[in-house]
Amino acid sequence: MTTKSNFSVTPWDVTGEVNYEKLVKDFGTSFINDKIHNRLKTAHPLLRRGIYFSHRDFDKWLEAHDAGKKVSVLTGRGPSERMHLGHLVPFLVAKSLQDEFDCEVFIPISDDEKFYVKDQLTYENAISYSEDNILDLIALGFKPGKTFIFEDFVYTSIYRYAARIAKRITYSEAKAVFGLKPENNIGWSFYPAMQAAHILFPQFVRGAHMTVVPVGIDQDPFIRLTRDVAEHRDFHFTKPAALHAKFIPSLYGDPKMSASKEGTIYLSDTPEEVKKKINKYAFSGGQSTIEDHRRLGGNPDIDVSYQYLRMFFEPDDAKLDHIYEEYKSGRMLSGELKKILIEKINLFLDSHRKKKEEAKKILDSFIYKE
Amino acid sequence: MTTKSNFSVTPWDVTGEVNYEKLVKDFGTSFINDKIHNRLKTAHPLLRRGIYFSHRDFDKWLEAHDAGKKVSVLTGRGPSERMHLGHLVPFLVAKSLQDEFDCEVFIPISDDEKFYVKDQLTYENAISYSEDNILDLIALGFKPGKTFIFEDFVYTSIYRYAARIAKRITYSEAKAVFGLKPENNIGWSFYPAMQAAHILFPQFVRGAHMTVVPVGIDQDPFIRLTRDVAEHRDFHFTKPAALHAKFIPSLYGDPKMSASKEGTIYLSDTPEEVKKKINKYAFSGGQSTIEDHRRLGGNPDIDVSYQYLRMFFEPDDAKLDHIYEEYKSGRMLSGELKKILIEKINLFLDSHRKKKEEAKKILDSFIYKE
Repeated sequence: MTTKSNFSVTPWDVTGEVNYEKLVKDFGTSFINDKIHNRLKTAHPLLRRGIYFSHRDFDKWLEAHDAGKKVSVLTGRGPSERMHLGHLVPFLVAKSLQDEFDCEVFIPISDDEKFYVKDQLTYENAISYSEDNILDLIALGFKPGKTFIFEDFVYTSIYRYAARIAKRITYSEAKAVFGLKPENNIGWSFYPAMQAAHILFPQFVRGAHMTVVPVGIDQDPFIRLTRDVAEHRDFHFTKPAALHAKFIPSLYGDPKMSASKEGTIYLSDTPEEVKKKINKYAFSGGQSTIEDHRRLGGNPDIDVSYQYLRMFFEPDDAKLDHIYEEYKSGRMLSGELKKILIEKINLFLDSHRKKKEEAKKILDSFIYKE
Repeated sequence: MTTKSNFSVTPWDVTGEVNYEKLVKDFGTSFINDKIHNRLKTAHPLLRRGIYFSHRDFDKWLEAHDAGKKVSVLTGRGPSERMHLGHLVPFLVAKSLQDEFDCEVFIPISDDEKFYVKDQLTYENAISYSEDNILDLIALGFKPGKTFIFEDFVYTSIYRYAARIAKRITYSEAKAVFGLKPENNIGWSFYPAMQAAHILFPQFVRGAHMTVVPVGIDQDPFIRLTRDVAEHRDFHFTKPAALHAKFIPSLYGDPKMSASKEGTIYLSDTPEEVKKKINKYAFSGGQSTIEDHRRLGGNPDIDVSYQYLRMFFEPDDAKLDHIYEEYKSGRMLSGELKKILIEKINLFLDSHRKKKEEAKKILDSFIYKE
């Protein structure tokens, strides 16, 4: 982890140690306050343990829900590879919101975006990654009949909605928000309209009153652009709400989990691979010798294994607190902490693999059709 | 008609008296030579009387046809209003090529383009103009089963092909060819990919070896862009050929017929409207008094009524020559020439209206489906 005070957050890059207070101020978002937290007490750890820390209009979304209006959750996936743990974050949250509020969930699969941005990605591979990733998502347990997955290269009707939005976004605006360069291809420059069409899709096609989008805080510029468009007289939509996550560290403890690095747990990893990766790469908050560790204790706040338990794998607060205390006191060694995590991950992945197989049978009921 | 020697031709604007020799040289196209002309002796007057005067690779298209390869014709329509005579030009040529060479014809309807470019055009109106225009096109007599019409906002699968092309056109390139401005919307900047996808569509979906596109010479920059893309290693398509038309004058004799002016014959005009428009607005090559006309004769080469007969309404060369001589000698007065044209137009429009009614019944057989 870097300790320099400068940091930079854009939709494509995160460097430095992120000051979330400053981001909230700079972006003009709101911290998730106690009133909202009280509504999320039984939600996924990502929501109730502060990994999602900021929002736009989520209070209004809750009010709309309580007033009986149709609210929805939307989060998308740009599939350019097999999925890893970090990719699951917004989907775990979307599922949790669906469970808590019994609302519809929309999952746009932006195979076009990845195709535009990655020079070497072929059209065929983009579609093939989509097919694989969709099964991973269904395996998370979304409700059939209340969950709608649509893929840009398959459900091309999305172009009709994107076109209407594209008309109201100038190249200058898109350039400012997305940092487009003249040498980028024109699919890339069109994509902001596709993304806004995704976010407004529940309003376009399902009469939703309001949609909340769980995203990494780095993706907020896209939310802002869509909020501006939503209110245009062509549409008169309620602005979408957002829930913003902090960055999920890689095993190395880097600020943002990235598939370009080895320290990533893929959903397809074998138990042996998981064990090896966690033992070899998971950044430890422990001391360098057992003696020192027993004497000084570990630091769970920077320990990636502990953080993964907190974010993903130990929903029981009492058990998590116990691990925290044991590790901090030095009674629990880094190897022991890692062992807990390895077991939890492998339990999850084993179950996930089975559910992914099951997903093939029910796939069709999740695919949005006109 | 202006007589200044400066002229300018872009895909959006034509000013001055056009020097076609210079255009062919500047654009790097070829004049239609005698060898090609001999293949078009029985074709539509627009083809055999030199209104189509330039080409790219049409000789290769003919060779491919003769070698038994699958060749096709493609010309599109961006519907933003009712159709007028000038709009028919490339379609009359496409039909003629279909009749001569028994080839497939593809007609993309770019309702999205007009929607992007015309700020006030609503999505609903764009689609409604498309529906009306499509009936006008079918009424021209294209062969069912060999003619495929597809509309961007309806046959949205076109997005799949446009995306693959978009990836290979940078914003800089599109800007250079289309004169895009930063304040233009991002739909507009994406449209070059849609247009190239239209042109390459017969190759993408029907295994065509080569396609020829009849266009106004001002549209050639789009052809060039598509020819560049066609050869990319992603596609390996034979470059599309083009047939280039001179500009069809408005009734006023302006270089390019434009719907923004009154001097335009709409396919929906009543006989009375046609009569009034021709009598009132059709630029005459006659003298200002009957006496002068009898003595000096008229000038058919600048007379719009004569030109319309030559281009559209008098396919019989002997009859056309006769009119030419009569008018030039002064034996035929401008009013008499106009009367011939009015009758011909009204005959055509009366028949067209009936065929357009018939078209509603066979519409479905022309719509491309996957």
